[in-house]
Amino acid sequence: MNFHTRKWVKPEDLNSNNTLFGGRLLAWIDEEAALYSIIQLENAHVVTKYMSEINFMSSARQGDIIEIGIEVVKFGTTSIVLRSEVRNKMTHEMILTVSNITMVNLDENGKPKPHHKKEVEYVKNRINLKK
Amino acid sequence: MNFHTRKWVKPEDLNSNNTLFGGRLLAWIDEEAALYSIIQLENAHVVTKYMSEINFMSSARQGDIIEIGIEVVKFGTTSIVLRSEVRNKMTHEMILTVSNITMVNLDENGKPKPHHKKEVEYVKNRINLKK
Amino acid sequence: MNFHTRKWVKPEDLNSNNTLFGGRLLAWIDEEAALYSIIQLENAHVVTKYMSEINFMSSARQGDIIEIGIEVVKFGTTSIVLRSEVRNKMTHEMILTVSNITMVNLDENGKPKPHHKKEVEYVKNRINLKK
Amino acid sequence: MNFHTRKWVKPEDLNSNNTLFGGRLLAWIDEEAALYSIIQLENAHVVTKYMSEINFMSSARQGDIIEIGIEVVKFGTTSIVLRSEVRNKMTHEMILTVSNITMVNLDENGKPKPHHKKEVEYVKNRINLKK
Amino acid sequence: MNFHTRKWVKPEDLNSNNTLFGGRLLAWIDEEAALYSIIQLENAHVVTKYMSEINFMSSARQGDIIEIGIEVVKFGTTSIVLRSEVRNKMTHEMILTVSNITMVNLDENGKPKPHHKKEVEYVKNRINLKK
Amino acid sequence: MNFHTRKWVKPEDLNSNNTLFGGRLLAWIDEEAALYSIIQLENAHVVTKYMSEINFMSSARQGDIIEIGIEVVKFGTTSIVLRSEVRNKMTHEMILTVSNITMVNLDENGKPKPHHKKEVEYVKNRINLKK
Repeated sequence: MNFHTRKWVKPEDLNSNNTLFGGRLLAWIDEEAALYSIIQLENAHVVTKYMSEINFMSSARQGDIIEIGIEVVKFGTTSIVLRSEVRNKMTHEMILTVSNITMVNLDENGKPKPHHKKEVEYVKNRINLKK
Repeated sequence: MNFHTRKWVKPEDLNSNNTLFGGRLLAWIDEEAALYSIIQLENAHVVTKYMSEINFMSSARQGDIIEIGIEVVKFGTTSIVLRSEVRNKMTHEMILTVSNITMVNLDENGKPKPHHKKEVEYVKNRINLKK
Repeated sequence: MNFHTRKWVKPEDLNSNNTLFGGRLLAWIDEEAALYSIIQLENAHVVTKYMSEINFMSSARQGDIIEIGIEVVKFGTTSIVLRSEVRNKMTHEMILTVSNITMVNLDENGKPKPHHKKEVEYVKNRINLKK
Repeated sequence: MNFHTRKWVKPEDLNSNNTLFGGRLLAWIDEEAALYSIIQLENAHVVTKYMSEINFMSSARQGDIIEIGIEVVKFGTTSIVLRSEVRNKMTHEMILTVSNITMVNLDENGKPKPHHKKEVEYVKNRINLKK
Repeated sequence: MNFHTRKWVKPEDLNSNNTLFGGRLLAWIDEEAALYSIIQLENAHVVTKYMSEINFMSSARQGDIIEIGIEVVKFGTTSIVLRSEVRNKMTHEMILTVSNITMVNLDENGKPKPHHKKEVEYVKNRINLKK
Repeated sequence: MNFHTRKWVKPEDLNSNNTLFGGRLLAWIDEEAALYSIIQLENAHVVTKYMSEINFMSSARQGDIIEIGIEVVKFGTTSIVLRSEVRNKMTHEMILTVSNITMVNLDENGKPKPHHKKEVEYVKNRINLKK
């Protein structure tokens, strides 16, 4: 799994017990899943349809650095299924995992649209190919 | 199910497709589950331990008003299990449901602690009893 | 008075004395008044025209849960007059009251428009009626 | 009246009608009143106690620049009474006025404390005096 | 140099060491430069093109009040060059300086456009002239 | 250069011209430099001391995905010098570059402290070594 995004836990990210607010963490994961899908599907119009169960395994504190990993589980016809792990960057302690985040590729009317993707692509290669 | 909290969808809540950012919605639900638990367990030190699968059934747009409902599924020894529904206030169209949000009651060292609660209580009654 | 919205006081809501920032509280009340009016007047284009004097009776601290109540004082021709109370959910201690918040119903050009409402309606009943 | 602070209305400041969210404006005024009082009373522990009625005279749109003015109405024993005007920087059109914002000077236990100030002072002069 | 804007350092502005987050400070300066340019050039479509080196001379803590000053270095044909100082309001201790912030005046297609300004103007005078 | 962090440009990140607010971008870079330094220096108490000149080469729009890259220029005794590039993830178009960001390693009293680091280390290797 690649970890493409890091976050620094600041006071604005805390709940009132001074640990990382779980809702903030869920928002970060959802954003990461959305942008990963947009890159893979080459379509900016992608929405979250489903998240499987979420286990909060440990928390994080002010000053911790966390990293968010995403990998593809499956390419559907109009969807992409992702898996995510969030861990503490310094200790590699797992913070949470979600095994299925289903994102749907939409057309300009907001209807599901086939994306014709079958495997993970790297933007670097796409850019080279277009040259 | 009682709906105790309402939100007005403003530009700061949108994703880049101009619909309600799913991560913001998850953050709102997590906050609502936390504060509901704090009220029921009469303890400010409560954390989210688990969320069951989440179905995003419809979205919301700028200017929509949504309401977030919570009800208790079960009182455990150190935990409380909640169910949440989020719906559009004007149409009652369902936006998402989560059937199990498990919150854990902690002591001052962050360890699970029995809460001795067995049923939903109303703050109004507690206040009357203390008079 | 019904209390439809709850807030959990988090670090991002504090002023530099570590009590609830008064400006944040005013923003919450204004949002609540706006969404309450939108629901009652069945029009998304409603603006705050006037607030009567505001007494800050007590403050709130990190971790407190507050609830915001609204009730209708009067239906005008193009306006609705509301009253708001904010209190601590756990103790019912009053935090502030505002006895007159005047919201104006606008047409698509931003001009005041009669709303033809004379009493509080419940969305549930509207939905039933439309069936 | 001196206008010490300017704000640029950005998308995050809008309500769902795409005009400046009234609650954001109230938060800006409260912050300005607090920091003005802190400077005058030379005490960081100052709270808002009261705001007189607020007339929203015009609104602002994305891209507008507004400026917030404060002046002292009266020095009380433990309080300071301020007046505020908010106007559009480019046209000087008035957006709102508040004629009485009462701020209270607190000691370290949160109790009102005399501040011994009787007139507006300029920080520049204080610094020169201390040389 | 005139200091037109003040900020009150609140918990949401802190980094995880509980001092003012440098990135927040840079955002405040960029906003101030943008709005100053918009006022001077009488055009809302202005972008930051260049910032010269930035020295962080001291920091600020929760509860501090800082003020942001801007002055014009030079009027170019399609640009305006500004200088900024940020200092602690209470002690006048310098927090940072930037000696060249170049803002560019754009037309409706996002292309540089001459602004025909040669000196600092005061809005008050413009308004009087138009009477 | 490695790009460790991605951002999705949402409405809350825009200036009033609906392009990415430059100040937001500077805040993102500063956060990335801070967390990169914390990881390398294995010390949470690190501050930004200096940024060399910044060229804004292109902008970004709502829905764009940008990535922020950091690499080490030099390890000083108490400092680390970084270089940063920000580019559009989809097109690899450069958005801005900063060739020198100097971060200082502090002790618990906020004084510069030698960090004894001479080269980039990978957390994975550190964790393996400790086994």
